[in-house]
Amino acid sequence: MIYFDNSATTKCSKKVIDIMNYAMEYNWGNPSSVHTMGKKSKEALDIAREKIAFTLGKNVSPKSIVFTSGGSESNNFAIFGSALHNKNKTRIITSKIEHPCVIAPCNRLKNILNYDSIFLETDKYGLVDKEQLKESLNDNTLLVSIMHVNNEIGTIQDIKEIGQIIKNYNENILFHVDATQGYGKIPFDVDDYNIDLLTISGHKINGPKGVGFLYIKNTKTIDSMIIGGSQQNAMRAGTENVYNIIGLGESCKENYDTLEKRINQMRSVQDYFSSLLISLDDVVIHGPKDAKHRAPHIISAGFKNINNFELMDELSKNDIMVSAGSACSCLKERNDASTTLRAIKTSDEFLHSTIRFSFDHNNTIEEAKYVFDKLKQIINELKCK
Amino acid sequence: MIYFDNSATTKCSKKVIDIMNYAMEYNWGNPSSVHTMGKKSKEALDIAREKIAFTLGKNVSPKSIVFTSGGSESNNFAIFGSALHNKNKTRIITSKIEHPCVIAPCNRLKNILNYDSIFLETDKYGLVDKEQLKESLNDNTLLVSIMHVNNEIGTIQDIKEIGQIIKNYNENILFHVDATQGYGKIPFDVDDYNIDLLTISGHKINGPKGVGFLYIKNTKTIDSMIIGGSQQNAMRAGTENVYNIIGLGESCKENYDTLEKRINQMRSVQDYFSSLLISLDDVVIHGPKDAKHRAPHIISAGFKNINNFELMDELSKNDIMVSAGSACSCLKERNDASTTLRAIKTSDEFLHSTIRFSFDHNNTIEEAKYVFDKLKQIINELKCK
Repeated sequence: MIYFDNSATTKCSKKVIDIMNYAMEYNWGNPSSVHTMGKKSKEALDIAREKIAFTLGKNVSPKSIVFTSGGSESNNFAIFGSALHNKNKTRIITSKIEHPCVIAPCNRLKNILNYDSIFLETDKYGLVDKEQLKESLNDNTLLVSIMHVNNEIGTIQDIKEIGQIIKNYNENILFHVDATQGYGKIPFDVDDYNIDLLTISGHKINGPKGVGFLYIKNTKTIDSMIIGGSQQNAMRAGTENVYNIIGLGESCKENYDTLEKRINQMRSVQDYFSSLLISLDDVVIHGPKDAKHRAPHIISAGFKNINNFELMDELSKNDIMVSAGSACSCLKERNDASTTLRAIKTSDEFLHSTIRFSFDHNNTIEEAKYVFDKLKQIINELKCK
Repeated sequence: MIYFDNSATTKCSKKVIDIMNYAMEYNWGNPSSVHTMGKKSKEALDIAREKIAFTLGKNVSPKSIVFTSGGSESNNFAIFGSALHNKNKTRIITSKIEHPCVIAPCNRLKNILNYDSIFLETDKYGLVDKEQLKESLNDNTLLVSIMHVNNEIGTIQDIKEIGQIIKNYNENILFHVDATQGYGKIPFDVDDYNIDLLTISGHKINGPKGVGFLYIKNTKTIDSMIIGGSQQNAMRAGTENVYNIIGLGESCKENYDTLEKRINQMRSVQDYFSSLLISLDDVVIHGPKDAKHRAPHIISAGFKNINNFELMDELSKNDIMVSAGSACSCLKERNDASTTLRAIKTSDEFLHSTIRFSFDHNNTIEEAKYVFDKLKQIINELKCK
């Protein structure tokens, strides 16, 4: 099996699986219990927080890490929590190419409570319109939420510049970054980027599913979303997912410790595979061309006149796993087109013929060669049908 | 180590750990992916749903199971989701002895949106005042939320009777039951009890932490809370916690298949331990005396003039794990008293001297004997201090 769908989910590393196994057997106390078993679990959470804080920047406090059930909860929490805490402001600025779990809360606030949610345009590479951002900032703005790396086409936003624009206008406006696809792929420092809130999901970085965190620079700037428990300084109620948090801490550390090597490996597979793809007729690769704006692990490619679901199914029959756009919405969108592809004004002929290939550091040049050969063969067969 | 704190959390069964291990290695695809790996995960979720639905009643549809991150999310979801869907009604009826993750959402709705949240009184055994419930039901009532088994003193509510009272008044009023402490301890059927919404947490039933579900009889009666993804029929966004859900399905099945045997074992340990406790001077056992209203796995006992935290610490030093009230709030409440003990009007001398002993089916009479001997010795030492 060749797995080129690492933006949908990744396999846990061996060490993460081992460490979680150990925790399920020996570290299963409730961290809120004050007896020995509870204290052991609480210590494990503290260690995970320290490991994670270290990966986010030079001066990040472990207390700023609030564990959640994953990226969707973290993004919902960032938006609803900000709105709950700052009820006198109702403008939220985001973009048209955000993940649905950012778009949907902004729409819910707009539809139910008449919030003034703004969805910024992007250019044809998926880069957010910074001029429109500048024009949209006003005294009523409580939050700007922009993703680090787009999950479908791999565009890296100018997060540092966007952070500066926001804070130059008003340093009290909260800046949320959904880094689900950027963390563990691109180095960054939350303070350097002026980030107040940052979303991370475990299962995108060879960590466990069902766990993630929201980095909250100052917990006095947002309210909690899941409530009724003093866990995590009352920022997120519920018995902590101890084994998964231990696994998440380990996967963050592994990513951080070997980040350069990982990036180099993904970039070499990406460059090689791209060079093969563009040798084909009628292929377009979506997203930026320059390395600064192109994440190392995603290639979104359109194959003219080829139905992406047919292509994906044929690849799957050959034990090659890829996806059409994001996994989260594909079941619904089999007959619908990707919002990101629409936002970047992809021509109609590629809207339903685009495949996302996404890598992790375990993928190889040999795999890319094998996938390309199969892909070429399948495309020829589909064209002859 | 003797673990008498199973209402705080339980250890996963060996089979649950094994099955989760296997899943982390071989079943890690994203259930929303349409390729082979994704389909395998989707099938695993479907199997877990079927296993679980079977344990809830004769005619329960697997589609009514919506997986969440646990009991707190499920309780928040039931309340906020009901309120979001039924905006024309603003009365929510609950009780004073609910878990904080039920109380807090009712208070948030009351404080922010002027909801008419009613907190029913209980008698000295912790049984909800059914007359007050009848008087409180009105045309503005959208939801009644009553817990199955109290987490601190083990009172089993008359859920069937309460369900009938609600539905006799108006069958459209939603009935939510937090069964976190009842499921896997007491047999019941959601349809027989007129339940619309039911909360379950995995880690209370020898299943994994960080996972649970909300049973939703009719998904058209409530809105989702975590949004922006088509997972679980758009009732709960976010990549499903596949391994944990597989573990949860297994733990529900194990509980159901051996329920009678488990209850008998817990009841025998409870009866034996209670008989020893009441042989001591100045001890009171809180909660109902009759088996119908007394859960088989909880003993809440007050030791006059003994500080419960000192007692708990001494027991912990002797490798005996117990708790003072609920684990979720004890860190905060070291100097505060349990809301449940206050609601049942516990006299002051027992408010800070109460310990909860909670069992699972693995606990034995021999352990109870050992714990009692140590307890007696420690109490004597503390009295002499």
